[in-house]
Amino acid sequence: MRAVDLIRKKRDSGEHSREEIEFLVSGYTRGDIPDYQMAAWLMATWLRGLSLAETAALTEAMLHSGEVLDLSALPGKKVDKHSTGGVGDKASLILAPIVAAGGLTVPMISGRGLGHTGGTLDKLESIPGFNVNLSLDQFRGVLRECGMGLIGQTAEIAPADKKIYALRDATGTVESIGLICASIMSKKLAEGIDALILDVKTGSGAFMKREEDAVRLAEIMVDTGRRMGKKVVALITDMNQPLGRAAGHSSEIIECIEALNGRGPADLRELSVELSAWMFYLGERTESLVEGRRLAEAMIANGQALERFKQGIKLQGGDERVIDEPQRLPLARSNVDVLSESDGYVSGTNCEHFGTALAMLGGGREKKEDAIDPGVALTFHKRIGDPVKIGEPLATIHYNSDAKLRDAKDMIAASYLIAPEPPREKPRLIRRIIGEQK
Amino acid sequence: MRAVDLIRKKRDSGEHSREEIEFLVSGYTRGDIPDYQMAAWLMATWLRGLSLAETAALTEAMLHSGEVLDLSALPGKKVDKHSTGGVGDKASLILAPIVAAGGLTVPMISGRGLGHTGGTLDKLESIPGFNVNLSLDQFRGVLRECGMGLIGQTAEIAPADKKIYALRDATGTVESIGLICASIMSKKLAEGIDALILDVKTGSGAFMKREEDAVRLAEIMVDTGRRMGKKVVALITDMNQPLGRAAGHSSEIIECIEALNGRGPADLRELSVELSAWMFYLGERTESLVEGRRLAEAMIANGQALERFKQGIKLQGGDERVIDEPQRLPLARSNVDVLSESDGYVSGTNCEHFGTALAMLGGGREKKEDAIDPGVALTFHKRIGDPVKIGEPLATIHYNSDAKLRDAKDMIAASYLIAPEPPREKPRLIRRIIGEQK
Repeated sequence: MRAVDLIRKKRDSGEHSREEIEFLVSGYTRGDIPDYQMAAWLMATWLRGLSLAETAALTEAMLHSGEVLDLSALPGKKVDKHSTGGVGDKASLILAPIVAAGGLTVPMISGRGLGHTGGTLDKLESIPGFNVNLSLDQFRGVLRECGMGLIGQTAEIAPADKKIYALRDATGTVESIGLICASIMSKKLAEGIDALILDVKTGSGAFMKREEDAVRLAEIMVDTGRRMGKKVVALITDMNQPLGRAAGHSSEIIECIEALNGRGPADLRELSVELSAWMFYLGERTESLVEGRRLAEAMIANGQALERFKQGIKLQGGDERVIDEPQRLPLARSNVDVLSESDGYVSGTNCEHFGTALAMLGGGREKKEDAIDPGVALTFHKRIGDPVKIGEPLATIHYNSDAKLRDAKDMIAASYLIAPEPPREKPRLIRRIIGEQK
Repeated sequence: MRAVDLIRKKRDSGEHSREEIEFLVSGYTRGDIPDYQMAAWLMATWLRGLSLAETAALTEAMLHSGEVLDLSALPGKKVDKHSTGGVGDKASLILAPIVAAGGLTVPMISGRGLGHTGGTLDKLESIPGFNVNLSLDQFRGVLRECGMGLIGQTAEIAPADKKIYALRDATGTVESIGLICASIMSKKLAEGIDALILDVKTGSGAFMKREEDAVRLAEIMVDTGRRMGKKVVALITDMNQPLGRAAGHSSEIIECIEALNGRGPADLRELSVELSAWMFYLGERTESLVEGRRLAEAMIANGQALERFKQGIKLQGGDERVIDEPQRLPLARSNVDVLSESDGYVSGTNCEHFGTALAMLGGGREKKEDAIDPGVALTFHKRIGDPVKIGEPLATIHYNSDAKLRDAKDMIAASYLIAPEPPREKPRLIRRIIGEQK
């Protein structure tokens, strides 16, 4: 087999066999296939696409390029959730303690934020001392002790994905549904899980702006998971406005603590409970979704989820006192309101721009090398459908440096679409469910 | 400007500015843009195509990546011919001496053969002592002395093309009309010529099997040449069967000597005279094509073209006695006929397979590193339209090793299509003329 023949095959819209995909991935990981041949193949793949079978074969080859966690020594089912990302999406930090408290194991390998989206690892690192760089042995220890663990991708996990992703980033081949699916699923399946719930975001703050694209990605990921013997369901959820009221690292941790205390914004709570319920159900902890929801609500109401979060923070080296004293988190020194310039109703938002404005102020990464200021944040006061008056605050900016404050403020103000009439429908938070077994 | 943004632009079917193309080519030649980014861009370009303006900009950037010969010190116009290659195409070696004898300068930088096609440099090297690796200074000296010179691409000529071509070869991005055009034209224009005649082959033995593809390539090359201030005309010529009766290095040199002696196959002579006539006309040596044809015929009839070939061989270190004693060329020891297995008429040939069979026997390169046996050859006895009887020889194989003789023989036999009726039309040798000024 020769790489150049496989490049030509994909270029000419051919479908690869499992062996061909395995040859490419293992050859590239070992360094036998050079970057330039992989780059040509990635571009051909970006333009020609991958079939479901090819996507599953790619996922499998990438998964087996590294270690697959063996968690069979731990009791009960292992379940995880993956979100495609958006603005203010902190649901992982709420559902992991709920599901661990409810009796399942949640081995969560997460990523960092880039561009307009935040990353779970970055949010956790706003907690003083929190260490996301555990070895796989340490990770197993934490999981054994409290049922949840949150770390970054290690060198042992799907090294092919790490190498291919860096190449995709440099060659304009990131946004391909098959490649995205294989990248996500190879890492998630390396966690040694039994079931996975996917939160595929759609709307102005998501990578997939159009619902049909989100559905397609969800279908491919569900299919890939099934082909690899896992229970996988995807929820298509709304990202036409931020999730919850806070975006920014420390302030999202605070909002999670609020939610685990039974307070906090309704949309965030609803989504976290729904995702937890699916995890209970897919992980065979409950016999129905309804029961799953009940169990999730109970873990919040009895304080066990919050307790589990505290324990998890402590086990990963973090200062668990932030749970009761959130002022221990780094917070921004100054704040300013963004005021409405018209009367009317919020009819929509350009949600991605909230994330971009946050990154401009230091509360996110514009480039991969950028450091993050965890105190910088946005608080959102108005949701789609809410009435607003001239001069009323739409959002509050929490900042440390006013270098780009003016631009960020203008960008946020312009991202609220105010109309004279209320929008016909309030957006549904959960828009569709993909892959549910009847 | 960033390479990744230009890759994305081409991926999304955008059109590059001249500055963008220049940035890519000069950055890649210098090594600032890595192979993997160029590979991704090449694949995007293969799949999305290049506009006429982009093709001309790419040609110009590649041309100016190296030295452009200054031949202004030599008298008269400088003209050249390029063929896209086929089986038995030795016209360059006939027309160069004709045109030089007729008073123009022919600075010919040629290539080597690969796969089913032969290369002018390889054919010349079958002449004992012939040196195709002259420095540009030596080349100028040869041109001054006899009006013709035939060398390979030097490191000074279009280094960007050399680097990009090697990458295209490894990444399945060779067969793209815009990239082919830029590769050919950048090298040809580096010769410092005033006019160029293109012989674009079409048919079963050509790279462009379909006439419409050949026409498109011809149009793009003519347009690119014009944009760069050169007189360029393309002939679309037939390659549904070999040109002349011989394929193989020494035996093609012998057939050229025959043609320059006023003998040899009619199709080879007709094409050589026609291309020479165009060179005389475009090089303003004659006022019409008719006059050009007459001049070309005269240069053969009076022996000056043959004399010029002899002089050129001597000036480049070759044994010029081969002109009168062709047995001094390396010839194969053994030969065997390929016989017809049916009665009928030759209705077509799978011409590419003749070249492939020749390469299998050592008379061509299967891989770039392969050595060539210059004595190995095929002689073709039947042309399309000729009647054949069972047992009559279709071709003769001249070989040294019988390692793959059986396979080669079968391949050649199977490449003659014999039908019970003669084909309706004999193929026209010259099928179309592109870019002729009215």
